[in-house]
Amino acid sequence: MKKTNVSRGFRVPGFTTAGISCGIKADKQKDLALIFSEGPAIAAGVFTTNKVVSPTVTWCRNKLKSSKTFRAIVVNSGNANACTGPRGMEDCKSVAARLSQELEITPKEILIASTGIIGVPLPSGKIVKAIPTLSKELSATGWTHSAEAIMTTDLVAKSKSLSYKMGKHKITLGGISKGSGMIHPNMATMLAFIATDAAIDTKTLHRALKEANEKTFNRITVDGDSSTNDMALIFASGKAGNKTIPAGSPAYRTFVGKLTDLCLDLAHKIVLDGEGATKFVTIRVQGAKLKTHAHRIAQSVATSSLVKTALFGQDPNWGRIIAAVGYAGVPVNPDKVEILLNGSLLFKNGVPASGASQPALRKKMKSKNIVIAIELNSGRYSDKVYTCDLSYDYVRINAEYTT
Amino acid sequence: MKKTNVSRGFRVPGFTTAGISCGIKADKQKDLALIFSEGPAIAAGVFTTNKVVSPTVTWCRNKLKSSKTFRAIVVNSGNANACTGPRGMEDCKSVAARLSQELEITPKEILIASTGIIGVPLPSGKIVKAIPTLSKELSATGWTHSAEAIMTTDLVAKSKSLSYKMGKHKITLGGISKGSGMIHPNMATMLAFIATDAAIDTKTLHRALKEANEKTFNRITVDGDSSTNDMALIFASGKAGNKTIPAGSPAYRTFVGKLTDLCLDLAHKIVLDGEGATKFVTIRVQGAKLKTHAHRIAQSVATSSLVKTALFGQDPNWGRIIAAVGYAGVPVNPDKVEILLNGSLLFKNGVPASGASQPALRKKMKSKNIVIAIELNSGRYSDKVYTCDLSYDYVRINAEYTT
Repeated sequence: MKKTNVSRGFRVPGFTTAGISCGIKADKQKDLALIFSEGPAIAAGVFTTNKVVSPTVTWCRNKLKSSKTFRAIVVNSGNANACTGPRGMEDCKSVAARLSQELEITPKEILIASTGIIGVPLPSGKIVKAIPTLSKELSATGWTHSAEAIMTTDLVAKSKSLSYKMGKHKITLGGISKGSGMIHPNMATMLAFIATDAAIDTKTLHRALKEANEKTFNRITVDGDSSTNDMALIFASGKAGNKTIPAGSPAYRTFVGKLTDLCLDLAHKIVLDGEGATKFVTIRVQGAKLKTHAHRIAQSVATSSLVKTALFGQDPNWGRIIAAVGYAGVPVNPDKVEILLNGSLLFKNGVPASGASQPALRKKMKSKNIVIAIELNSGRYSDKVYTCDLSYDYVRINAEYTT
Repeated sequence: MKKTNVSRGFRVPGFTTAGISCGIKADKQKDLALIFSEGPAIAAGVFTTNKVVSPTVTWCRNKLKSSKTFRAIVVNSGNANACTGPRGMEDCKSVAARLSQELEITPKEILIASTGIIGVPLPSGKIVKAIPTLSKELSATGWTHSAEAIMTTDLVAKSKSLSYKMGKHKITLGGISKGSGMIHPNMATMLAFIATDAAIDTKTLHRALKEANEKTFNRITVDGDSSTNDMALIFASGKAGNKTIPAGSPAYRTFVGKLTDLCLDLAHKIVLDGEGATKFVTIRVQGAKLKTHAHRIAQSVATSSLVKTALFGQDPNWGRIIAAVGYAGVPVNPDKVEILLNGSLLFKNGVPASGASQPALRKKMKSKNIVIAIELNSGRYSDKVYTCDLSYDYVRINAEYTT
């Protein structure tokens, strides 16, 4: 039995889900997931910015443009169906055709995702053969299974749900995610699938997902690499019975807030499960003149191999942090910068703070949660990026798996 | 006795040099170097783009602007004199004052560099006290000693010289470099100091250094981090007696070519000595529509932790390479891309090449020299970046050294 990091037994009205083994992965590990909407749902997605993409990304982008409603998301792990040539899209079509037949829906109502090895043709025959079983396994509380079926080198399955009141209506959001770095032989892929019973229109749902994504999945980094298959999809069934959430309204702000909470939880679980990670690290940049400055500096610190190895070594290394601030490519006055680590001042007025090497500070470094706060004292903008440390195990996992 | 990677016993007419121990480093390791020009020389420099800089960088930038001729470069290792507040510049002044007295030159004719620990005041008293000995040790063949005295975690001392004929005049270039990643507690610094007897004017010398730097020191990456102290300086004594090299002339092109050869050798020695490196890796991108595209793609592949750990694991992982090409942030048509590793085709027409996982290829991966060639088939521009692999030892060196 795998470890799980799931909200057990949750339901999202209007949706059923399943996760089974279809034989792509060895040892009967779960490798095929289905999320099914009992009625027509609307959907939105955000995708990798990589120029090299899986046909599943192309499939979803096209369907989200051309179809109005959706009924199913089918996801396999163990094979990313990327760099597979024209055959890749044919395999998507085979899977969608069989699934549409089984579920009595149309292929254009189906979204597809894959994660795992790249450059190897998708064994779509195995998926096609397993579809009847997959369909039979659908259940309102099946999220534990679908969360497990989308794992690759993830050590724990990841899911989360939450509800809130909108007037007299209860709105529920639930989702699953996977991804723990990019792995053998190529990339692990960040995937997230979210379902909600909120009534909302497609354009507004897309805007909400983009907003939430910007603060969550777009603010995590394990190793700075980004995959050919990354995507986050959201389905909305409207079953909550609320009045359609209008864009820009207070109800919209609340919905985005809740969606952001959900995505942040799923994103944090990905970082916590980062390859070889021993620490969860928040880089918070404040007092920037522009939002982009705050983001670039946070990203620069979060992706510095030197900062990340220092954190693994439990070394409060302000020097590597201020250096990464300095090379972020945005204007910085080092004399104004303050650096705090879990609340302890490390650097101020261009020099290390007096307590910067105290034994007490070294003790703080043993914490699993590290917050590096960087105050620029140059404006009112801030940003946050989440990452993990860089350990021997990261190198082991990524060097020792060979083709 | 340390290992050396030096051209032994070379001379550059007009220059003497020395390297001694002044007590900043433990165990009487050499930590103070001097390069002296017997007469007034012209000089040029290129510096880190980090916004956080050592006062030595500020000192050199200012002097190169305000002084016409130079006589000395003094360099200490073991302390970077960075993040030391206003005291940092005072320490530069103390060192320059004592050195000017000893050598009977003026402080404005002196350039200063430091490398080592940051955030700790420079023990300038030790340097000042050692200056008479340093000056006595000056010799035309002292490059072995000065190369050793600028090392930090470098495993080998690095130097190189070469000569060529310009008409009946022999022109000599010689230099030393250091830097093997960024290290405890903060940064190692890339430093290079070059001397030539060529007759050339300051503006042209600066242009030549910038051109050579762009193809050499600016094209190497160990871990993507850049320091507060990086610099390359060149002195020209004019002792070769050649007619002053005019900018843009064939003689200038030859000089730049030779200077580039010298800098490339010194830059390669830095990568070869990269922290934990087991391989020297050349990323060559060809067929780009723009020069910047070729550079960004090469840089993206060269800094990918996944590519670098795969190389350490001797895995011909074309998937991580094509993914890094895809997220370089420039337009790419993956179907046109070809990837070759030490001459073997790995990837073409959007799919792995048939030989991509042959045992023969795995054997090639055992080579210490890896060339990854990426043909974009989209234009006529190319670029090269040099890097090393990412090993357990990189993590060990950077995690286990603690304050």
